[in-house]
Amino acid sequence: MADFHEECGVIGVFAKQTGPVAHDAYLGLCALQHRGQDSCGIAVNDQGLFRLHTDTGLASEVMTEGALLALGEGRMAVGHVRYGLDEKAGRMDIQPLVIAHRKGRLALANNGSLVNYGSLRDRFEDEGFIFHTTSDAEVISGLITKERLTAPSTEAAISRAMGQLEGSYTLVVMTTKKLIAVRGPMGLRPLCLGVKEDGTYVAASEPCALDVLGASFVRDVEPGEIVVITDEGLTSITTHCQTHKQSLCVFEYIYFARPDSVIDGVSVHEARVRAGEFLSKEHPVEADLVVGVPDSGIDGAIGYARASGIPYGLGFIKNKYIGRTFIKPAQNTRKAGVHIKLNPLSAVVRGKRIVLVDDSIVRGTTSREIVRLLRKAGATEVHMRITSPPFINPCYYGTDIKSREHLIACKYTTEEIRDLIGADSLGYLSLEGVKGIAKPLPRERLCTACFDGSYPTHPPRVSQREKYAQRLMRVGG
Amino acid sequence: MADFHEECGVIGVFAKQTGPVAHDAYLGLCALQHRGQDSCGIAVNDQGLFRLHTDTGLASEVMTEGALLALGEGRMAVGHVRYGLDEKAGRMDIQPLVIAHRKGRLALANNGSLVNYGSLRDRFEDEGFIFHTTSDAEVISGLITKERLTAPSTEAAISRAMGQLEGSYTLVVMTTKKLIAVRGPMGLRPLCLGVKEDGTYVAASEPCALDVLGASFVRDVEPGEIVVITDEGLTSITTHCQTHKQSLCVFEYIYFARPDSVIDGVSVHEARVRAGEFLSKEHPVEADLVVGVPDSGIDGAIGYARASGIPYGLGFIKNKYIGRTFIKPAQNTRKAGVHIKLNPLSAVVRGKRIVLVDDSIVRGTTSREIVRLLRKAGATEVHMRITSPPFINPCYYGTDIKSREHLIACKYTTEEIRDLIGADSLGYLSLEGVKGIAKPLPRERLCTACFDGSYPTHPPRVSQREKYAQRLMRVGG
Amino acid sequence: MADFHEECGVIGVFAKQTGPVAHDAYLGLCALQHRGQDSCGIAVNDQGLFRLHTDTGLASEVMTEGALLALGEGRMAVGHVRYGLDEKAGRMDIQPLVIAHRKGRLALANNGSLVNYGSLRDRFEDEGFIFHTTSDAEVISGLITKERLTAPSTEAAISRAMGQLEGSYTLVVMTTKKLIAVRGPMGLRPLCLGVKEDGTYVAASEPCALDVLGASFVRDVEPGEIVVITDEGLTSITTHCQTHKQSLCVFEYIYFARPDSVIDGVSVHEARVRAGEFLSKEHPVEADLVVGVPDSGIDGAIGYARASGIPYGLGFIKNKYIGRTFIKPAQNTRKAGVHIKLNPLSAVVRGKRIVLVDDSIVRGTTSREIVRLLRKAGATEVHMRITSPPFINPCYYGTDIKSREHLIACKYTTEEIRDLIGADSLGYLSLEGVKGIAKPLPRERLCTACFDGSYPTHPPRVSQREKYAQRLMRVGG
Amino acid sequence: MADFHEECGVIGVFAKQTGPVAHDAYLGLCALQHRGQDSCGIAVNDQGLFRLHTDTGLASEVMTEGALLALGEGRMAVGHVRYGLDEKAGRMDIQPLVIAHRKGRLALANNGSLVNYGSLRDRFEDEGFIFHTTSDAEVISGLITKERLTAPSTEAAISRAMGQLEGSYTLVVMTTKKLIAVRGPMGLRPLCLGVKEDGTYVAASEPCALDVLGASFVRDVEPGEIVVITDEGLTSITTHCQTHKQSLCVFEYIYFARPDSVIDGVSVHEARVRAGEFLSKEHPVEADLVVGVPDSGIDGAIGYARASGIPYGLGFIKNKYIGRTFIKPAQNTRKAGVHIKLNPLSAVVRGKRIVLVDDSIVRGTTSREIVRLLRKAGATEVHMRITSPPFINPCYYGTDIKSREHLIACKYTTEEIRDLIGADSLGYLSLEGVKGIAKPLPRERLCTACFDGSYPTHPPRVSQREKYAQRLMRVGG
Repeated sequence: MADFHEECGVIGVFAKQTGPVAHDAYLGLCALQHRGQDSCGIAVNDQGLFRLHTDTGLASEVMTEGALLALGEGRMAVGHVRYGLDEKAGRMDIQPLVIAHRKGRLALANNGSLVNYGSLRDRFEDEGFIFHTTSDAEVISGLITKERLTAPSTEAAISRAMGQLEGSYTLVVMTTKKLIAVRGPMGLRPLCLGVKEDGTYVAASEPCALDVLGASFVRDVEPGEIVVITDEGLTSITTHCQTHKQSLCVFEYIYFARPDSVIDGVSVHEARVRAGEFLSKEHPVEADLVVGVPDSGIDGAIGYARASGIPYGLGFIKNKYIGRTFIKPAQNTRKAGVHIKLNPLSAVVRGKRIVLVDDSIVRGTTSREIVRLLRKAGATEVHMRITSPPFINPCYYGTDIKSREHLIACKYTTEEIRDLIGADSLGYLSLEGVKGIAKPLPRERLCTACFDGSYPTHPPRVSQREKYAQRLMRVGG
Repeated sequence: MADFHEECGVIGVFAKQTGPVAHDAYLGLCALQHRGQDSCGIAVNDQGLFRLHTDTGLASEVMTEGALLALGEGRMAVGHVRYGLDEKAGRMDIQPLVIAHRKGRLALANNGSLVNYGSLRDRFEDEGFIFHTTSDAEVISGLITKERLTAPSTEAAISRAMGQLEGSYTLVVMTTKKLIAVRGPMGLRPLCLGVKEDGTYVAASEPCALDVLGASFVRDVEPGEIVVITDEGLTSITTHCQTHKQSLCVFEYIYFARPDSVIDGVSVHEARVRAGEFLSKEHPVEADLVVGVPDSGIDGAIGYARASGIPYGLGFIKNKYIGRTFIKPAQNTRKAGVHIKLNPLSAVVRGKRIVLVDDSIVRGTTSREIVRLLRKAGATEVHMRITSPPFINPCYYGTDIKSREHLIACKYTTEEIRDLIGADSLGYLSLEGVKGIAKPLPRERLCTACFDGSYPTHPPRVSQREKYAQRLMRVGG
Repeated sequence: MADFHEECGVIGVFAKQTGPVAHDAYLGLCALQHRGQDSCGIAVNDQGLFRLHTDTGLASEVMTEGALLALGEGRMAVGHVRYGLDEKAGRMDIQPLVIAHRKGRLALANNGSLVNYGSLRDRFEDEGFIFHTTSDAEVISGLITKERLTAPSTEAAISRAMGQLEGSYTLVVMTTKKLIAVRGPMGLRPLCLGVKEDGTYVAASEPCALDVLGASFVRDVEPGEIVVITDEGLTSITTHCQTHKQSLCVFEYIYFARPDSVIDGVSVHEARVRAGEFLSKEHPVEADLVVGVPDSGIDGAIGYARASGIPYGLGFIKNKYIGRTFIKPAQNTRKAGVHIKLNPLSAVVRGKRIVLVDDSIVRGTTSREIVRLLRKAGATEVHMRITSPPFINPCYYGTDIKSREHLIACKYTTEEIRDLIGADSLGYLSLEGVKGIAKPLPRERLCTACFDGSYPTHPPRVSQREKYAQRLMRVGG
Repeated sequence: MADFHEECGVIGVFAKQTGPVAHDAYLGLCALQHRGQDSCGIAVNDQGLFRLHTDTGLASEVMTEGALLALGEGRMAVGHVRYGLDEKAGRMDIQPLVIAHRKGRLALANNGSLVNYGSLRDRFEDEGFIFHTTSDAEVISGLITKERLTAPSTEAAISRAMGQLEGSYTLVVMTTKKLIAVRGPMGLRPLCLGVKEDGTYVAASEPCALDVLGASFVRDVEPGEIVVITDEGLTSITTHCQTHKQSLCVFEYIYFARPDSVIDGVSVHEARVRAGEFLSKEHPVEADLVVGVPDSGIDGAIGYARASGIPYGLGFIKNKYIGRTFIKPAQNTRKAGVHIKLNPLSAVVRGKRIVLVDDSIVRGTTSREIVRLLRKAGATEVHMRITSPPFINPCYYGTDIKSREHLIACKYTTEEIRDLIGADSLGYLSLEGVKGIAKPLPRERLCTACFDGSYPTHPPRVSQREKYAQRLMRVGG
């Protein structure tokens, strides 16, 4: 069960007429909540007046009835959910970022991680700029604002700014008249377009956010594309397309995205099922039942079962009330940490040889506990199968893995890990295998750097952002 | 998807030595959270001093680190979660109820519903008693306290009190020296015993609460049994056993209990799978895929698939972040109510004939919306199958159905309901079928009054409890 | 500056027509807030339906706009503010207490302290009664409820109950049809009646609560009197009048009551001015300026100045933003505790010989700090004058002094105290003096037990209420 | 009773050794709370690491025990309290503002109001700067940061920035090594220096903040002076001194400052007493008692009484529990608005001819209500005396008067106002009189523009700041 986290989800709404665009943004953010649970924000454009509401917490906690009322109606809205709010920067880092500049207001929401944040910020500071956050969004806003002073349009300013950005970014930008959706040239994070029956355009990180709004999927935004939505409709700037190798993060398929999303033409659910199928070919085993670790191992288990012919079964009941507020129990009941969330279904697993499918092993502690619980519930054998290769390299594009020290696969062989987690056998999906799960997407269009170290950019200077965060620690407010 | 609710979950802990009994009670309540999400409370017995913490909200919200610290260590604890806090009675109704009487302190947690609450309360009031709540717990505590004045022991007082109670009740009672677990003579609600390796006894509504504590299941408490746990061990009073027809609520198997619990010898998961299997025999259909409505229809779908040979598949993705705090969106996006929680997996259902399994249809609105979503996602046919018979009679034993007016099955024929929800076909499990899901439990040991009107007691005078609640409305505090 | 506390303030409202009686009660409680800042509650009688809102905090915190809206309109209301919420009993102890008994609803608010609480409670428990609080209000409600079973009217039941009560109590009782105001036979605590121009009757602890409602003062309720207000007007039961020596607590004049109140015919402000005048005769001194310790020493200082001819001046500025939420600063700035609240006006006191007037010295630490601040601000001499005799005996009627150990006057001579607080001279008002401050009220009508040990009742068995509180500690909720 | 508001209070602390500087800043802010109650913030410099805590509310609400703990120890701290948080800018506007620039961190707290905010901001935006607030503090920080790129020191950068600022400002600036206190060249707002026995330097808006820290008053900061505090001690840059006409706001003496403060050599209390004395000469009347409206009219009443020989008395009791949380009662009890806060002391005023002293009349509604209450309490005559001239011109330097429409003195003659408020006579202090209250401060050193229209700067373009605020409205977060 992966316990690293994707950084953000973004949404933009452009309606034909003034209406409850904040509600649309809110529902979309609820559907994107799996991409970030730490803060939420929505900005509404009501005839050029921007209203903004942001706070820490889930979308459903932040967007109270009063907040939605205060946001009011408008023609456009942008919204953002994020994981990994920088503790030192506090609430200053919550997006969307709204810029009230005399050249025109601008609201911006971003998903991604720049690798040249430091050199860009330093350049700005040398001109006297003041930064209030350590977020990419502020640096990107600064570049766009600066270019807007001379550019013929906001989209032209964005295009010029993109020429200076390195790394991953996915933007939804709102001006007084336009909604602009931008996917970084590498296409590391997903971004798609939809349209409602009433003509309202929606741009969102994943199609599951379109579904909940009753919007039809139109298409993915192309890597490097700038989509401009105005009253005249949708236009596209493709200057930055095809300028970089396209590198969609493979973990979007393995773990980040919601199974009901279709990204770059590939169903996430089917990609996961396919991973399970491949796994069954690569690591077959004689067993009585295939079970998945909820929720991320379920699809893979279905695939493994389908390809192997071993029956699929419900192996665990997940306690759906254990959320972010759960307090870890005292020392002597620490083991309950996993057990309180997952309880094996003894009636199903007792006396059986179990194939246990999960999406990844990060530190190994959770896997060990799950194997132990299965055995205690009566499983006679537990064969662990992982729908991705060993995770051995840090990610610089938004996946929150601090260092190799936390990665079990950097320190142990597969056999040692099997022993540590107490499984009877352990099989990881091969690198070749994982590159094939997203077919018909060409395998070279996937970023698999965390498995093979083949990064699509230069890495950033190490822990450079930490440096900026250290200058100031907000302890509240 | 049932949207009626079981009233409560109870737990009691008796340790060999002073220790973190509140943590045990807390973890157990987390596992019983599905039985009630509106309030939570724990009382700790620390060498005769009782400490109590209660509040509205989920166990994980109420039992903050500070609250657990304040509860401190002890030898015994009792805990309670409840649904359906009476709005008029407010927080006064939260359990456990603690009685600080000179004959000895007593903490009491109850799951059930008395049918002679009114006559008991009237009798007390005629003697000058003052009631602070409209809960059964207070009337039961009053009876026990009164009997304690003359009885040789608390368990004797409880036994005498039981002679005056009619209806359903399941008690965990803590005195300064004893933990007493009582299951009403009809056995309408479950109650079981477990023991940890260190000798700590646990009594809980369902075995899933034992699992999370690492306690082994010992046995179910018998209907009518009074189990007394002291330093000398476990003794049992069986005076009230076999005095009433045993009538375990069949909805415990269909909907209330957690699938990983085993009640009166029957796995809840297996009972639900069996219901699906029966349903496939009673209402077969030619189709391509069986899917369950999460979460309550999943087990039934597995059973239907297994018995019919039609493949089982994941039909929906459930948004796990939509909890109690979710604000219904504005008027024009009302339909999103179901959709925000459940999104069909188009990649799975498109172009398929679907068997859709759910546990019940109460008002029909949710079912209609789910069928509509499936069709929109590309399902060519939708065949609805319900793992219980039509719900046509009110329950007097704790299931919160106000009146027949809310029950769709009271107003329409099955064919009319099929038409209303827009399904291609609709099949309910038969009365005979539902009585067989819990084998080897004899079919006559199940209460199926909500289906067949065969109540195990006289019904209470209608809306009698309302009468008492009306006398005072607490609007806060 | 006294830092002991009076227990409570009560109010009752009886309007001619349905209207915002909760608002009247609320405004009255705001005016009585000095009598208790720990909790607040209001019960409204709306055509026989009782609505109740209570919580911890100031009236202005508890009675939010939403709370007042929820309380709604009615014909009658009773309200209560209290100090000294029992930490162990928690919010259960907040008044008014509302009894929803079949003989009729009853809401009750009490100010006082019974000395036979223990024997009454024991008697009830012997009959099987359950107590939810350790408050006198619950015992009194129990007695009234029991008597109501046979009494011809609620007022008759109250009268019978009064025959069993010993100690101090002051009740406002609301039934479905009547508002009943009761002052205990000793008249230890004040209670008065007023009427608004629209005929609304108001009963309140002090007349300052009438003023804010625009109600005219009608009269004090007599010690022992039961005033019954109905649609037919005001009737009075005097059975319990003149049965006990009348003993108004002299600290109502010295400290508890608000200076703008008139109690039993005596202006509190004038009584305090008179105390200052007497003090000037008993302890004259050559000085340049008389200043009072805000707020309780101001009136006495005006009296001392007037009688001595020494000019009165503002000696201190009080920080009006330091309320209950103030966090004591860290160890090394502890001294700021007093200084943060009171800062001497150097421009006024520099180079002057100061007479410093306060109402009492309890532990002496505050007085020492104030004298030190005055000297630091430039005062050349500080002569402390106290408008009451040394406080040497515990109070059993509602003044929160735990034991003699906390009373500086029990341990030291006046000269030793003068030395401890660092004053140049120290003078207490004499016992004879304090008995004369409330003229024309006969001196024997005042309870001065805290000064002379002459208690109007037998003292209660020591720390008896503690015993009951110990049985259960509520740590929240 | 003035109901306009001064904008802010500032404090800076520089200790010899690492210690609880946040506690010192906190206590100082508590003493400055009268200058602003809407938000509070403290930044601590702990060996170059800056920690910041800010929030809306009183200092005692914002600086919880946890917040002070999180701020931790350090060598320096700056703090800020403010009134008039811009609703549109929300919490972004809370100070201190902390700048984490590569040229060095900087925390800044400001009291004042620039008149060239608009032209400065426009100039910055033309260079591409992004503003996050509409506060002067951000523009000033921008100027300082820009100058720091080339200036030899932060103080030199501040000096250069001051050359570009017009209007009122009073800064406390903290760098990694220095604490810098700056008073704008006009000296419109106060700023003073103090030192504790342990050598800790303190800069604060008023000396009352020094007192509470046990710091000795050193001197006022001169208008235009830059005081630099380092480990080497205190140095001063006087380049901007004597460059502008000195113009201390006379309302600091009349209303804003605390009576126990001494500003530019003048005791605020004595200035107010003197205003009362002058008033007695300018508007004598035959009367029995002089009373002040609490709290702002008390000192003036003492002066009037002293000069006229009419006795001074306590006329009102102020309800000290009515704070910011007070909810205005319903329509039909609206009049209670003033009465709930102030109740006349009937025992004192009955049958008397009263001189009623207040500091100002803004809209007249409060004065009318107070006069009415006095008459109802038995006063036979009420002669209103105001310790300042009629307020007829808007203030551009931080006093929150939106427009002349709200000023009663702009619309009516004195005789008409007397009639409106129902007084028997009405007298305002003359312009000449008010200019003399601060002696020995030369009368030309006071800004009296609100009375005589003689502004020390050009007024800003009207409602210019509104323009910027309108670009974005934060509705939360």
